[in-house]
Amino acid sequence: MGSIYKKSLKLFMVAGLLLVFYFWRPWSCSGVDIQPRRADPIQTLLDGKTGKILGAYPDIPYHIKEEVASRLAQNTCVCLADEETFHVPFSDLLFPRVGANNLAHAFLQNNPHSEKIKNHRAQEYNSFQRRSYSPADVLIVAEANSPLQYPTQGVKVQPLRTIIIPGLGLKQKKRSEYMVYLNATLGTFDVAATVDKVSIKGLREKKMTLSSPQLTALNRQLQFVTYTSTVFHPRTADSIQFGTEGYKSFFTIKVEQKKIPKLYNSGYSDEYNITALVTIATKTFLRYNKLEDLIKSIRQYYPNVTIVIADDNEHPQRVTGPRIEHYIMPYGKGWFAGRNLAVSQVATKYVLWVDDDFIFTSNTKLEKMVDILERTTLDLVGGAVREVTGYTATYRHTLSVEEGGEDGDCLHIRRGYHHVIEGFPNCVVADGVINFFMARTHKMLEVGFDPRLSRSGHLEFFVDALGSLHIGSCDDVIINHASKIHLPWSKTGTEKAYDKFRYSKSNGGMKLVEEIFYFKNRFKCTTSPR
Amino acid sequence: MGSIYKKSLKLFMVAGLLLVFYFWRPWSCSGVDIQPRRADPIQTLLDGKTGKILGAYPDIPYHIKEEVASRLAQNTCVCLADEETFHVPFSDLLFPRVGANNLAHAFLQNNPHSEKIKNHRAQEYNSFQRRSYSPADVLIVAEANSPLQYPTQGVKVQPLRTIIIPGLGLKQKKRSEYMVYLNATLGTFDVAATVDKVSIKGLREKKMTLSSPQLTALNRQLQFVTYTSTVFHPRTADSIQFGTEGYKSFFTIKVEQKKIPKLYNSGYSDEYNITALVTIATKTFLRYNKLEDLIKSIRQYYPNVTIVIADDNEHPQRVTGPRIEHYIMPYGKGWFAGRNLAVSQVATKYVLWVDDDFIFTSNTKLEKMVDILERTTLDLVGGAVREVTGYTATYRHTLSVEEGGEDGDCLHIRRGYHHVIEGFPNCVVADGVINFFMARTHKMLEVGFDPRLSRSGHLEFFVDALGSLHIGSCDDVIINHASKIHLPWSKTGTEKAYDKFRYSKSNGGMKLVEEIFYFKNRFKCTTSPR
Repeated sequence: MGSIYKKSLKLFMVAGLLLVFYFWRPWSCSGVDIQPRRADPIQTLLDGKTGKILGAYPDIPYHIKEEVASRLAQNTCVCLADEETFHVPFSDLLFPRVGANNLAHAFLQNNPHSEKIKNHRAQEYNSFQRRSYSPADVLIVAEANSPLQYPTQGVKVQPLRTIIIPGLGLKQKKRSEYMVYLNATLGTFDVAATVDKVSIKGLREKKMTLSSPQLTALNRQLQFVTYTSTVFHPRTADSIQFGTEGYKSFFTIKVEQKKIPKLYNSGYSDEYNITALVTIATKTFLRYNKLEDLIKSIRQYYPNVTIVIADDNEHPQRVTGPRIEHYIMPYGKGWFAGRNLAVSQVATKYVLWVDDDFIFTSNTKLEKMVDILERTTLDLVGGAVREVTGYTATYRHTLSVEEGGEDGDCLHIRRGYHHVIEGFPNCVVADGVINFFMARTHKMLEVGFDPRLSRSGHLEFFVDALGSLHIGSCDDVIINHASKIHLPWSKTGTEKAYDKFRYSKSNGGMKLVEEIFYFKNRFKCTTSPR
Repeated sequence: MGSIYKKSLKLFMVAGLLLVFYFWRPWSCSGVDIQPRRADPIQTLLDGKTGKILGAYPDIPYHIKEEVASRLAQNTCVCLADEETFHVPFSDLLFPRVGANNLAHAFLQNNPHSEKIKNHRAQEYNSFQRRSYSPADVLIVAEANSPLQYPTQGVKVQPLRTIIIPGLGLKQKKRSEYMVYLNATLGTFDVAATVDKVSIKGLREKKMTLSSPQLTALNRQLQFVTYTSTVFHPRTADSIQFGTEGYKSFFTIKVEQKKIPKLYNSGYSDEYNITALVTIATKTFLRYNKLEDLIKSIRQYYPNVTIVIADDNEHPQRVTGPRIEHYIMPYGKGWFAGRNLAVSQVATKYVLWVDDDFIFTSNTKLEKMVDILERTTLDLVGGAVREVTGYTATYRHTLSVEEGGEDGDCLHIRRGYHHVIEGFPNCVVADGVINFFMARTHKMLEVGFDPRLSRSGHLEFFVDALGSLHIGSCDDVIINHASKIHLPWSKTGTEKAYDKFRYSKSNGGMKLVEEIFYFKNRFKCTTSPR
């Protein structure tokens, strides 16, 4: 009885202690500072060193090469329209001129709160920059004739995990003792194996020193140095200092979760299964008859493809049919909100955007669009829209951003494209295309359509897509545009209502675009073809 | 007359030639190969060099340090559940065990096409890897004792623009002639200024050589070397080789569009204007009475905040009120589709997600959530949900991915968190939180909710968010959960219908989650608390 009593007592004490630890968890009380990071001490050291390197040789003269120097970014883009250079008939057609819109002026004029808006924008931008800052973007220059060997790129660790740091080494002339040290901020050092004759100080700490009388032993030991990330962050970088007497080098270890893919199971036939790969998305308003024509024409060529319809009519009608998904929105919620909604519902790898007054024909070969998206790094490919007159448009545009300093940057919009695509002679690389395109669904949703743009908007999506989407345009995938040529007296009631709603000359739409470019995207100027 | 005639003729010839050039554009015919990139020749050179560096000192013995070596990724994660170690009362509560789900087995068993599915998944993953490949991720090791000075990080250029390459230099012992060369693949070299006594070959080409009898002159000239990106790509990198006789170094120039911000104009008051900053989003199905209770409770504390409601009822009722946006979806389209839809309509900086059976109370202080999102790098912060019993849940989880080789990786799901957040004692950093959270709208849409998850799903969003969202959880922002404690015979008709729909023991939901983890995210195993 006594021994059972003692055993039970011990068991309960152990259980009690375990309960205490279970709820108290002293080992997990370490706090983490997650304010947007400023430069840490290692960073400051690095900046000083780089500054010295870049400022050398001030006394040797040079001669500026104007045609190259003028192409360098000056951080001072100027908001200027093209001058009309000379007068010939059709000059605007032959030599399209470019207009300029000074956004601050357009958006802030006559606004009593203009100073506050400017300050708010500057604060938000400052926040954005601090949140986007990463030590992985900072300029580092490798010193010449340094005895240090170290990795300059490609070292990464998952948060709270451990890796071996590859490539560390010391190549010094003969001496009695060889020494190196390592410093970190967001992690600690250790070794995965030990080598005789090497002494190590600072194991499992942010600063570690290794020394040995034998250089080859030290170098062998350096092959087993590990870094453990100790501060959780899903995407950051640690600045590492690696030095010996008289020499310092800096490199970065990226701290990142492994990139988890989004793969689509679209079947395993040899040909492209459009039904499994593509969803067609559109938005409709006041044009149910045209929408029905579109659906009929789609079904002629792709009888089983899913069609997603966003609908913000005041009195929505039922749109039914196999594989048709109809979404009702608040009345007049608008164009970009509808586009964002439709794309948010797509479960296939690709989404094809069409307007509700397009008509599929035998030239509307979606397989061609899928083919270029499967075989290249394009994320989005536009086609061509043929008017009833036979005129076919691709609406190819290029977009570029020029730095403008504190007041914001300049956005330059031009017609045209960058390159033809090898292997696809009808296709080019551009930054903006027409409103008939196929895109990787999740990439399109990553960019998103700003739900505030209700009446009109097109290139605003491509501005948001800059740097995210690789965009192409093929002129051999053609869709027809239902005829817009109506004599005014022959338009139906709904057609007149549609025109009135969409094309009304309200200033509201223009002001909103200016706000979006001025505030959201922080431009001070846009230049575009007149 | 004759001179006017001649002038007109000249003018028309010029106009004619210009027309020809306008449509022909011989200068823009250069094609670009945009197939997913494999290693270019410079890359192959680099790999060979790095391999040699990493394989040195094979003869020096070492002793493995087990506790460190065991933490290194082996690429061979194993799908094992915890064994039950010893039996005590409440052992599962005190010592929660972890179960393992072998996804390939669960998803592919009894499937006649299992081989084809496996191959399709492997092909899609291969495509994904090739498309994600960037020379900016490749391991580069800087040689020791090299006379070359060069930038190892931080050099970037916008597509088709020109920059000065900072930090190039040569520090060699005295000799009669000093020489360096530069090689690129996606761009060309030039100089922004010239320096006497330096001769340059290969201006405006992919390989440039500079030489001089005077070292300081050569180094001064190197301060003006420019790189021009000539192949348009929105986000890539060029591997640059910089060498002299007997020495080569490698570095990367990133080719990227400037990151355009998405700033929100939320007014300029000193306090947080919740109406301008936050939109509340929810999805509703068969619980209009609970939805009305939710809306009433919101209006008590936030009378003007916009509420977005996604509704996939079979017979939708009208939900009206100021600043309420009601969206009708196809019947039963589902949970994640509804979440994606609601978030796609939000125009404010932050979105608050709530379930339609939550109730706001005086403890539901949205200002606290906004505060931590404004002041830290968090993208999403969860709160706490209080049941009618008083039990309050935060559902904090950690997620980690362990590499598993060719068959896929392992996903480990555990309860708990990573760190407490400094300055916010009630808040921690985690990877998954409860279904009551506030997030940066555009970051949430970047991740997205997979519209295929119709009945249930929660952590799947956080799995997709890994590496993208910085996630926190604060237990001092509390919302109430409408009572779920009903005796079975007192449930209303709609409550019974809801339970039947949502909690039906169909295998379909489970199979879908397995497919998503197995195929879409390419896991071979998940381990999670039983």
